[in-house]
Amino acid sequence: MLELLKREVLEANLSLPEQGLVTFTWGNVSGFDREEQLVVIKPSGVAYQDLTVQDMVVVDLQGNIVEGSLKPSSDTPTHLVLYKNFPDIGGIVHTHSPWATSWAQAGKAIPPLGTTHGDYFYGSIPCTRKMTHQEIQQDYELETGNVIVETFQHISSNEVPSVLVHSHAPFNWGKNAKEAVHHAVVLEEVAKMALHTFQLNPDVSAMDQALLDKHYLRKHGVNAYYGQK
Amino acid sequence: MLELLKREVLEANLSLPEQGLVTFTWGNVSGFDREEQLVVIKPSGVAYQDLTVQDMVVVDLQGNIVEGSLKPSSDTPTHLVLYKNFPDIGGIVHTHSPWATSWAQAGKAIPPLGTTHGDYFYGSIPCTRKMTHQEIQQDYELETGNVIVETFQHISSNEVPSVLVHSHAPFNWGKNAKEAVHHAVVLEEVAKMALHTFQLNPDVSAMDQALLDKHYLRKHGVNAYYGQK
Amino acid sequence: MLELLKREVLEANLSLPEQGLVTFTWGNVSGFDREEQLVVIKPSGVAYQDLTVQDMVVVDLQGNIVEGSLKPSSDTPTHLVLYKNFPDIGGIVHTHSPWATSWAQAGKAIPPLGTTHGDYFYGSIPCTRKMTHQEIQQDYELETGNVIVETFQHISSNEVPSVLVHSHAPFNWGKNAKEAVHHAVVLEEVAKMALHTFQLNPDVSAMDQALLDKHYLRKHGVNAYYGQK
Amino acid sequence: MLELLKREVLEANLSLPEQGLVTFTWGNVSGFDREEQLVVIKPSGVAYQDLTVQDMVVVDLQGNIVEGSLKPSSDTPTHLVLYKNFPDIGGIVHTHSPWATSWAQAGKAIPPLGTTHGDYFYGSIPCTRKMTHQEIQQDYELETGNVIVETFQHISSNEVPSVLVHSHAPFNWGKNAKEAVHHAVVLEEVAKMALHTFQLNPDVSAMDQALLDKHYLRKHGVNAYYGQK
Repeated sequence: MLELLKREVLEANLSLPEQGLVTFTWGNVSGFDREEQLVVIKPSGVAYQDLTVQDMVVVDLQGNIVEGSLKPSSDTPTHLVLYKNFPDIGGIVHTHSPWATSWAQAGKAIPPLGTTHGDYFYGSIPCTRKMTHQEIQQDYELETGNVIVETFQHISSNEVPSVLVHSHAPFNWGKNAKEAVHHAVVLEEVAKMALHTFQLNPDVSAMDQALLDKHYLRKHGVNAYYGQK
Repeated sequence: MLELLKREVLEANLSLPEQGLVTFTWGNVSGFDREEQLVVIKPSGVAYQDLTVQDMVVVDLQGNIVEGSLKPSSDTPTHLVLYKNFPDIGGIVHTHSPWATSWAQAGKAIPPLGTTHGDYFYGSIPCTRKMTHQEIQQDYELETGNVIVETFQHISSNEVPSVLVHSHAPFNWGKNAKEAVHHAVVLEEVAKMALHTFQLNPDVSAMDQALLDKHYLRKHGVNAYYGQK
Repeated sequence: MLELLKREVLEANLSLPEQGLVTFTWGNVSGFDREEQLVVIKPSGVAYQDLTVQDMVVVDLQGNIVEGSLKPSSDTPTHLVLYKNFPDIGGIVHTHSPWATSWAQAGKAIPPLGTTHGDYFYGSIPCTRKMTHQEIQQDYELETGNVIVETFQHISSNEVPSVLVHSHAPFNWGKNAKEAVHHAVVLEEVAKMALHTFQLNPDVSAMDQALLDKHYLRKHGVNAYYGQK
Repeated sequence: MLELLKREVLEANLSLPEQGLVTFTWGNVSGFDREEQLVVIKPSGVAYQDLTVQDMVVVDLQGNIVEGSLKPSSDTPTHLVLYKNFPDIGGIVHTHSPWATSWAQAGKAIPPLGTTHGDYFYGSIPCTRKMTHQEIQQDYELETGNVIVETFQHISSNEVPSVLVHSHAPFNWGKNAKEAVHHAVVLEEVAKMALHTFQLNPDVSAMDQALLDKHYLRKHGVNAYYGQK
């Protein structure tokens, strides 16, 4: 079942080490069939080079395994919360990519400092609050999803497709697994440049809102004119 | 038409990912046939690995497509302004290369700190002023070119073949597309070393003018003695 | 003798340059057969690309060469002290990997700042005190082992499988040579991210103890639920 | 003539891009036949991938071309001064490797901060004073050599095989061309780690002299015991 989605999710997982986003098994990608309400996700702790289409695990939104002989990623409950709450997304990727993770460990949002950021993220990339002891000790992975959703109460998950989880690492999403990985690559590049920008100019402020509007909207929405569309 | 120039521009575009200057499609190179007054430029949003000679777009200085079935780079109006105003250049490259872009985001010129800089740039590599809301909202890409030209009012575009556009990224140029890419590589290396130099010595001042003269002029102009010429 | 262990140790040594952990011959891996009380270790100063299974040196815990025609690594006495004092370890790796070595040169422990750290290290990665002149001048490599053991007086070598030797570089260990190298890779990644975290937030404090407990214990011990076990 | 030395010098030049020490043609290696009093050096401004044994230029200590149809490196006079003044060296390499060059641009010596440094350099790696206008304007490359020699008035060129030329970049040497390149690689690694060490601990002081003695002398001199000798 879901052969096409399984292939997409496998390929997206394999692209993580190719893009330099992961060390060992530190990352996972899932894809969502919104019609069937089923999620395909990487199995837990399996090395990328050993992954096959058959290893992909199918779960429903309650986390029940529908198909697959391996345990799904331990982060599966986080993915499920996001699919339930972000109505337009079809793929999620979690990594410990080093530049973005450094921002998450610092507990700081990445402000928009230039057009590279503005081409993909329509505002700051937020960092969640710290989780409470209760959230950590009970249903930790589910509560990780909840704290992300809370962080996006006043932010559009379509306009800002990444988040930094405090003291942890980023989650990224998109309309499918491939786009989610694309956003993970952009986030890492943006995080690296933002750190260096602050080193050059500790007093730098966010880019001009008009410039952010221009760059985000020339690539997104009804008036987009970038690319061949 | 312009088969040779198309090949040069294609090769220059392909060298961007090879040199580590671009992520995804974040960069474009053009070449200029000054006799024919025609520009060859990368199509918008096409992945480098998919580019062919036939994909290259030919436009005139008014931005009309003279040949090609794809839309030219969205940055085309910026390129055209530079070709009209910098009389000796035959190639332009725009990238979001991370070290140079960090300086652009910081809104700071790169001062000449050593002979690597002085071998290619006869003075600071300037950063443009911020663009006004009107410039951003009307003819943004054309106005990006204008603000670059304004920045070079008292700087020779031959002696300083790169610029940082504020809150955006660098543009580089040269006598042809290949040399423009060469300058983009040098800029990135110089930007990286300048950042680390300031980290080691926040009070560092520009290099001695006599040393800058020596290095720039041993490679450029009538008294040059570097290389086999 | 010990053919299997020799192969494991050879492969672990060869993985050091593959993982980007060493320059030239700046690193060595050993493996321990606790039943036979014999150590297999890299020969001193031999380039990785030239190493063969036959080059591996077998020594006893007193440092006597039991088999092999080459001199063992000059760091052998350090390895022996660790095998004698850390009862559960079966492999040791020493490198001068650059991020971890920068922390060792700074004389600072790496505090746990995020879950990447917490997934592998149950607390700070300590830095030894400076060695005394006497320790340096007499039996230097043996005393290096002793100062590591002293540093772990109140730390479990199972829970924190790496140490920074002051003004020197890291040692890492594990249940076998392969796991020791795995920890060396993690340490380098954690050291890099911790440095960047402090640059973004000089006042950052250690991660929440509850979060550290959660991450360490979901991968280690009787209640672990990460991976396929 | 000097076929063997030409091959050695060619191979050493080719190893510069392999080791990541150079961009474009920003580096050159020479070798010295002290008996014949002849130097073999890279031609000026030729790309590494195009170099052949026949391209190597042979010059005498006065800088006269003895064999070769290409112009020697513009830095040849610097090399000749060093061969004349440092009695034991047989190879020299000049690069603009980015970490070492950042220190040179900052005008700062690299203090010994750890054993990686101490294994190769018996003390600080000095930075020359700024050159005077007269030195820059008259016989610049020869005076570059003179200011290096002046810097080593009270330092042994055998014990510290690298120097940073102020506002410029490093020169390295060794008993032959290959060892000079080896030292250039070590310098770059040491320069990188020293910068990061200062970021972690701005008040760090030089390593303990006893530890420096131990590490330098276990690899150099009559009591060395590292390696297979």
